[in-house]
Amino acid sequence: MKEFMDNDFLLTTETAKKLYNDYAKKMPIIDYHCHLQPKEIYENKKFRNISEVWLGAGDRYGDHYKWRVLRARGYGEDYISGAADDRERFNIFVETIPYTIGNPLYQWCHLELKRYFGIEEIISPQNADIIWEKANKKLETLTAREMMYLHNVKTVCTTDDPTDSLEWHIKMKSDPTLKVKVLPAFRPDKGINIELDWFFDWISKLSDVVGYEIKSIGDLTKALAERIEFFDSVGCKVSDHGLDIVYYEDAGEEEVNKIFLKGLKNEKISSEELDKYKGYILVFLGKQYAKYKWIQQYHIGALRNNSKRMLKEIGADTGFDAINDSLVAEKLSKLLDKLDSTDELPKTVLYNLNPRDNEVIAVLGGCFQGAGTGIKGKIQFGAAWWFLDQKDGMEKQIDTLSQVGLLSQFIGMLTDSRSFLSYTRHEYFRRILCNKLGNLVENGEYPADIEFLGKIVRDICYNNAKEYFGF
Amino acid sequence: MKEFMDNDFLLTTETAKKLYNDYAKKMPIIDYHCHLQPKEIYENKKFRNISEVWLGAGDRYGDHYKWRVLRARGYGEDYISGAADDRERFNIFVETIPYTIGNPLYQWCHLELKRYFGIEEIISPQNADIIWEKANKKLETLTAREMMYLHNVKTVCTTDDPTDSLEWHIKMKSDPTLKVKVLPAFRPDKGINIELDWFFDWISKLSDVVGYEIKSIGDLTKALAERIEFFDSVGCKVSDHGLDIVYYEDAGEEEVNKIFLKGLKNEKISSEELDKYKGYILVFLGKQYAKYKWIQQYHIGALRNNSKRMLKEIGADTGFDAINDSLVAEKLSKLLDKLDSTDELPKTVLYNLNPRDNEVIAVLGGCFQGAGTGIKGKIQFGAAWWFLDQKDGMEKQIDTLSQVGLLSQFIGMLTDSRSFLSYTRHEYFRRILCNKLGNLVENGEYPADIEFLGKIVRDICYNNAKEYFGF
Amino acid sequence: MKEFMDNDFLLTTETAKKLYNDYAKKMPIIDYHCHLQPKEIYENKKFRNISEVWLGAGDRYGDHYKWRVLRARGYGEDYISGAADDRERFNIFVETIPYTIGNPLYQWCHLELKRYFGIEEIISPQNADIIWEKANKKLETLTAREMMYLHNVKTVCTTDDPTDSLEWHIKMKSDPTLKVKVLPAFRPDKGINIELDWFFDWISKLSDVVGYEIKSIGDLTKALAERIEFFDSVGCKVSDHGLDIVYYEDAGEEEVNKIFLKGLKNEKISSEELDKYKGYILVFLGKQYAKYKWIQQYHIGALRNNSKRMLKEIGADTGFDAINDSLVAEKLSKLLDKLDSTDELPKTVLYNLNPRDNEVIAVLGGCFQGAGTGIKGKIQFGAAWWFLDQKDGMEKQIDTLSQVGLLSQFIGMLTDSRSFLSYTRHEYFRRILCNKLGNLVENGEYPADIEFLGKIVRDICYNNAKEYFGF
Repeated sequence: MKEFMDNDFLLTTETAKKLYNDYAKKMPIIDYHCHLQPKEIYENKKFRNISEVWLGAGDRYGDHYKWRVLRARGYGEDYISGAADDRERFNIFVETIPYTIGNPLYQWCHLELKRYFGIEEIISPQNADIIWEKANKKLETLTAREMMYLHNVKTVCTTDDPTDSLEWHIKMKSDPTLKVKVLPAFRPDKGINIELDWFFDWISKLSDVVGYEIKSIGDLTKALAERIEFFDSVGCKVSDHGLDIVYYEDAGEEEVNKIFLKGLKNEKISSEELDKYKGYILVFLGKQYAKYKWIQQYHIGALRNNSKRMLKEIGADTGFDAINDSLVAEKLSKLLDKLDSTDELPKTVLYNLNPRDNEVIAVLGGCFQGAGTGIKGKIQFGAAWWFLDQKDGMEKQIDTLSQVGLLSQFIGMLTDSRSFLSYTRHEYFRRILCNKLGNLVENGEYPADIEFLGKIVRDICYNNAKEYFGF
Repeated sequence: MKEFMDNDFLLTTETAKKLYNDYAKKMPIIDYHCHLQPKEIYENKKFRNISEVWLGAGDRYGDHYKWRVLRARGYGEDYISGAADDRERFNIFVETIPYTIGNPLYQWCHLELKRYFGIEEIISPQNADIIWEKANKKLETLTAREMMYLHNVKTVCTTDDPTDSLEWHIKMKSDPTLKVKVLPAFRPDKGINIELDWFFDWISKLSDVVGYEIKSIGDLTKALAERIEFFDSVGCKVSDHGLDIVYYEDAGEEEVNKIFLKGLKNEKISSEELDKYKGYILVFLGKQYAKYKWIQQYHIGALRNNSKRMLKEIGADTGFDAINDSLVAEKLSKLLDKLDSTDELPKTVLYNLNPRDNEVIAVLGGCFQGAGTGIKGKIQFGAAWWFLDQKDGMEKQIDTLSQVGLLSQFIGMLTDSRSFLSYTRHEYFRRILCNKLGNLVENGEYPADIEFLGKIVRDICYNNAKEYFGF
Repeated sequence: MKEFMDNDFLLTTETAKKLYNDYAKKMPIIDYHCHLQPKEIYENKKFRNISEVWLGAGDRYGDHYKWRVLRARGYGEDYISGAADDRERFNIFVETIPYTIGNPLYQWCHLELKRYFGIEEIISPQNADIIWEKANKKLETLTAREMMYLHNVKTVCTTDDPTDSLEWHIKMKSDPTLKVKVLPAFRPDKGINIELDWFFDWISKLSDVVGYEIKSIGDLTKALAERIEFFDSVGCKVSDHGLDIVYYEDAGEEEVNKIFLKGLKNEKISSEELDKYKGYILVFLGKQYAKYKWIQQYHIGALRNNSKRMLKEIGADTGFDAINDSLVAEKLSKLLDKLDSTDELPKTVLYNLNPRDNEVIAVLGGCFQGAGTGIKGKIQFGAAWWFLDQKDGMEKQIDTLSQVGLLSQFIGMLTDSRSFLSYTRHEYFRRILCNKLGNLVENGEYPADIEFLGKIVRDICYNNAKEYFGF
């Protein structure tokens, strides 16, 4: 029996241990997609206690993974998204953790305590006091930036609305004390989700930012292009799209403009109109990204805000999202093909939230690789995401990618997290990766050429992302 | 090499063996969903031979799992659903069993012989005589009720039509000799499947039962409410729905009434009309269930009666059903949200037949948990069902539930069976569960806290269901 | 640690080794579906070097699996589908192979070198010279036919258009030197894909072949029936359909004729019309196959020619195909049921390209087995196909088939390949099969009855296919 989460955690063979310890462990981190607040990095946020940084609540985003298990245990919102006392909320969470057996949270939480706070105690009510004390003591010096340095984070891309002033990013650019490269990423979902209530308000906001009224689709694309130019000037190299459903149908500007005007008036948009409007904007943006040599990311398949009651009560992104099962292959193929047809398809990372689409997405991406460009893995099958960001999900992503594509050219892990405590997920991924490769070797499916295997490991942990994104 | 199906069957680690033997093995059984005939329990059915109880045929439902493999071997219906001699049918089945390698039937059948009849012989033509004799000898005393007692069955929920008089359940309520609690469950599929030929006949039957003509949707919901009240009075706490396809669209009574009237006349009902009619009834029923504190079960994704020729020849539920692949996420989300929006969503168990929907269903359920109610696992991701009710299917259900939800609060196994011989499936499930937990411990993914692990095992085997259903 | 690809490659237990070495290894091969060129078999093709036979290019189909990884590495088409020097192309491929860790290509390629050329060197740039020399030396005598003899290939079915003259098949029938039975297979996709640009041209070609103008659906079915009769006379026993999407709706001849006429004029065909036209032809053909006792194969779920740019540049079947995710259950059920309803459903092999449909397809097939016909496994769940033709895909196909059907009656592996080097895939499959069965035994899930297990192994490797196809 292996010890609980010891040094060889998740490493089941000697080859795996060697690969992890000698090659993976020391590589720096590029976190090319996350939801950290740039302001908190700039201001080097100090947390009042473990409850704030671990669970979140109140005026800032919490960790909805943790919130969901508390709800499943029947606890009230007061202790979750609400205003209960920090220590009480901590106690309830600590009581819950032993019941999360088999859930990634169990291991995330222990890793977080070990690596950030040096706490080796098992999380349980008996150890609540000691964990509370040790962690809070550490937090006196362990600020946001120190958490990043502790994990050797080299580059971080946040997630920013096109209307954002990038105030904090600009300040960070000229802050000589900051030892991490923090870049913005362009996430124009609100300009694409024409069917949502807040579309008009967002367009108005964009109008204010660019300084002219946006009255047509042409105005909108002009404004988006200007914002891309601005983001690029602040160092942005990455865009990100939440394509809950992939919409696409070829359509001309005139037709799309009519749909845009309906959207401004909050009129009902049909599914066919969504295909045309969203397709048009995505193609326009893809071409812009190609022009600036940006990388675009498509996050496909979320089904959001399922409980409308809770959306009204506590807002979006609070743990009431799920996985959609809408069809994706044909429209995604058409969208990528449209950009490819004029050789304006940028480097693209495709993430799917429904694991049943793993093969569809990985294989489709392989039809649009950059033959003749010298780019390795131009279309990437993205890392296991959100609900799939756990051992089984990661293993399946690695398996699918290696079976129908090239694992060796994978750009590796990202946190996609709102929390500074999530860098341990890179360790988790690296252990799983090394274990996978170790198994291939120990089963006689790949030669025991440790040096070459080590190169592949270092590439996936860091070098591939560095080359791919051009950081 | 492990011995074939010995005491440690499916238990691959010491921790697993300890958890199974010291904690799981002795727990009683709550079989909260099955298709046993209440009459056979009341009358304490005695079986004429192993063929009758093992294979079924003729005037009663058989075991369609077994029938399907006989058909795949090319045997004729005479030996399957037909009137061939019991011993001949037994012989053919025994000849077939060695060819079911890798199929759950191979192990179900051996477990059935071991646990019910003390037969340790391997099933094969060479052992046909001895199995036939030993089993038939045992059946002289091993009646329906004795089979239940043998497995320490505490509670059983049958499956009953709203028009059922519950005659046998009522009799059982006042039978002091019966040592199992046998409760009815409310399955109103025939009132929901408005598109099927027998809709009018069923409505007529319901009219007869309630004593007034059902001429409108209002009459129908009134009648259903009365039947729920009646079922509740006989001890019912559970409903069950065969949602082959999840239909849902919001609609008002007037519009739904028009669809109802079309259904009565057996006119063609469009897909949009099914959304509205079925959605309306499901919401009505869900609110009733909430009122009575019943648990509702949705069985999603069957594709029934694929061979129309065999439907005509031998009827429904005879082994010609399959798995559908229709989309489920959006409409199921809307249906649950509708009930949740007025806080009238009852405790709900969601079962999917297509394993590709595991993650969709498990995660969606997690959006409607009972925060603030104190209910643990209000929305359950149901046990692996029908074609998935085997080792791989169970392991995937356990994996998915633990990764995106809380396995520790799972209400565990049920038989969903028409046969008194199926209680060994609880043993099968418990072994797999203990093995899963054992692996987590032995791999260093969870601490070796046997006592707490044992509590989780006992909870999943029995205590959680007892608390959840209120038996 | 196991040695890299030694004699026990993929065999992890003693039982597995015994089953493979004593039973599987020596069985002949029936390759009942492939894309070899009959002309090359007849003429006993001699290859100019390892590059030609391994990678292909220029005037003949290449190995698109290999091409895809070269594109993912950023290499140009010149080295892939183009005219670069054979040795240069070889070098680039050899440089790439170490990066295909985890991809089936890594092991396919090593097996190909080992079994065809006796080359035990690991593929890497350091060994490029020696591999090039050894392989080319061997190719002086290792012709197309010798490659087949080397692997004990007994029967091969090619893939042929209904308009094909079968010239080479006819010549092979009377070639006494040919020691392999080479049979045509009937693949009428071009007559079914009415929506594609080349439909009219193909109908014209068929007109030329049958000697009369095809002006109606009646003419078309008459012509197809004549071609089936002709194919049958040359020994054909198998048809094959690329059902990228399963279309089906019941429709009469008159209605279908109108759709046919639209297709001839290259007018836009709606999705409903495709259901009717394709359904009508598939039912007509199925009945013909039943009449001739042919076996029909449905290959379901490809999404082809995703990059239109590359389709124009280098044509179809060059590595730009992917996996579709369209729904399949209901229409496939209706199509099979239509043929079953008049007892004219031929033996059928169902292959799905999207692994998420494994359970749907395997279970649905089980609803149409040949009860009373004595046919074992009338409806087959086909071997893992194309992108799934690798260890994980094969294991899942074997698992699904055994769990919801009868693995023991499986007709086993096929290459589906354009290359004479693919017979090692039978070895690969056999190792995986034996390992699966070995695991069941060693885990105590099946008795260690080696003789009976050996029979099952030999059946799946050879005997089942021989009986099923009547070769």
